[in-house]
Amino acid sequence: MTMQNSGDSLTPEVLTGMVTQSFAGTPDDRLRKVISSLVRHLHGFVRDIEPTLVEWQEGIDFLTAVGQKCDAVRQEFVLLSDVLGISMLVETINDLDAPGATDSTVLGPFHMTESPVRRLGESIDMLGSGIPLLVTGSVRAVTGAPIPYATVDVWQCNEDGFYDVQQPDLQPAGNGRGLFTADSQGRFWFFTVTPSHYPIPTDGPVGKLLSATSRHPFRPGHIHMIAQADGFRELTTHIFVPDSPYLDSDAVFAVKKSLVGEFARATEDESARFEVEIESPVARVELVLSPESEAHPATGLGAVDR
Amino acid sequence: MTMQNSGDSLTPEVLTGMVTQSFAGTPDDRLRKVISSLVRHLHGFVRDIEPTLVEWQEGIDFLTAVGQKCDAVRQEFVLLSDVLGISMLVETINDLDAPGATDSTVLGPFHMTESPVRRLGESIDMLGSGIPLLVTGSVRAVTGAPIPYATVDVWQCNEDGFYDVQQPDLQPAGNGRGLFTADSQGRFWFFTVTPSHYPIPTDGPVGKLLSATSRHPFRPGHIHMIAQADGFRELTTHIFVPDSPYLDSDAVFAVKKSLVGEFARATEDESARFEVEIESPVARVELVLSPESEAHPATGLGAVDR
Repeated sequence: MTMQNSGDSLTPEVLTGMVTQSFAGTPDDRLRKVISSLVRHLHGFVRDIEPTLVEWQEGIDFLTAVGQKCDAVRQEFVLLSDVLGISMLVETINDLDAPGATDSTVLGPFHMTESPVRRLGESIDMLGSGIPLLVTGSVRAVTGAPIPYATVDVWQCNEDGFYDVQQPDLQPAGNGRGLFTADSQGRFWFFTVTPSHYPIPTDGPVGKLLSATSRHPFRPGHIHMIAQADGFRELTTHIFVPDSPYLDSDAVFAVKKSLVGEFARATEDESARFEVEIESPVARVELVLSPESEAHPATGLGAVDR
Repeated sequence: MTMQNSGDSLTPEVLTGMVTQSFAGTPDDRLRKVISSLVRHLHGFVRDIEPTLVEWQEGIDFLTAVGQKCDAVRQEFVLLSDVLGISMLVETINDLDAPGATDSTVLGPFHMTESPVRRLGESIDMLGSGIPLLVTGSVRAVTGAPIPYATVDVWQCNEDGFYDVQQPDLQPAGNGRGLFTADSQGRFWFFTVTPSHYPIPTDGPVGKLLSATSRHPFRPGHIHMIAQADGFRELTTHIFVPDSPYLDSDAVFAVKKSLVGEFARATEDESARFEVEIESPVARVELVLSPESEAHPATGLGAVDR
């Protein structure tokens, strides 16, 4: 019998090698690459910090609490990924090969209910509170050509900084959310209220982590959007409210300069076309999609009820 | 306003620097070191594998499922730590500075109920099934001096490979478990049945991971022990059943040569002393504890109901 797990020579280095070797028979090439890299980096982390058994147990307890905090309307692991900059890193890496397209940013943890289908011009604010904000935009290709009938999934918090799912008693389901289909020229428009900056949920383990590391939990005000169209790469992004607090220290690192919106006042043309008063607030949005590629098929993330 | 999250220059490297910087104000030195290392290695992993958004979502879903599989009698994150060799790596690192002591090995996921207090000579097999195995041993210091009244917490699966908590309908709670106190000369003895090799639980996400990577889930037969005494470093270890299958490919990498037991036949002396038939099976165990140090205080892991 080969004593593969040989005690006498079981150094940390030997052990890492054994674990890597144990995954060498993984049939799927991609999974084998991912798990080998995971073992290498995770073992590197452990060898670097040399945790005590108590610290290891604390790590297990923390991860368990993160998992157990998740439910139908709360995704604490996405939150953890967000505050560690992992979500933004993944977005940034995937964005590198989409030149000319609108910058993407994080999905965030609040896209777990399907947005109600709404007509162009409808308001996503079902409570009629706050100062109405007109959002007008268009979806186009990097060539400049409009993308007819692209879908634009929109979700945001209200003027107090809460999403519908966080206030089931105060907000009707679907408040602040809308699934729009652009017109034949790729144009879309809807009404809403200006979303507030807000703290990410701090009543779970991720909140404890932020507190223990003296980090604030705030995000600048923003409207989430996912734009989708056949033949194009799905775009997950935000429009940030200009002059919002925390634009320079977003708790989830999601701010890109190009995504800070241009909020303006309605022109005469806009006033006539969208039936709003001249000088009322308007946010103008351009969503530029890159062509679908083999490496980046449509994910369907926007369509799934999560 | 400083645009710290500057979109135009938001490369993966810049982002990793921003995330590291965000934790720079962590008041606790150790936590700051741990989280900085975590960010560096986790970002290194992500930059290495360049996950698609779908793969990122799969990762989130996997970790969530691991957390949600945990309950009072199931610790799937310990299982994940075990099959990735992390548990054994932590044990090995902590073992390096305990020369002369008995090798430690993983705690495993089944030490979640308190072992019933038992008298020396009692059987931990509450069902009377299987062939009785006498375990005799002693707890001593690296100097050779016996450690009077040391506690020895013992737990194991039955002859079919199941722990009590896995078969609440077939095994009484506490079957296969016992908390013993050694006598004035550090000696302990009890009866049990030879534990079988067994598969770690495969009905959760960790089982899916093993299956997807073509790894078997089996562990060689073993008896868990935690030895504790004031002034000594707590020892968490196994006694492996010699000639058990899977000694050379333990799914959790916990085998050390020195921990493979010496199972023998009772001598005349043992027969008289422990009231067993001559030639009946006996396992002889030596547990050598190193002195408690500042770096390794008694963890109390063995005493906590988990």
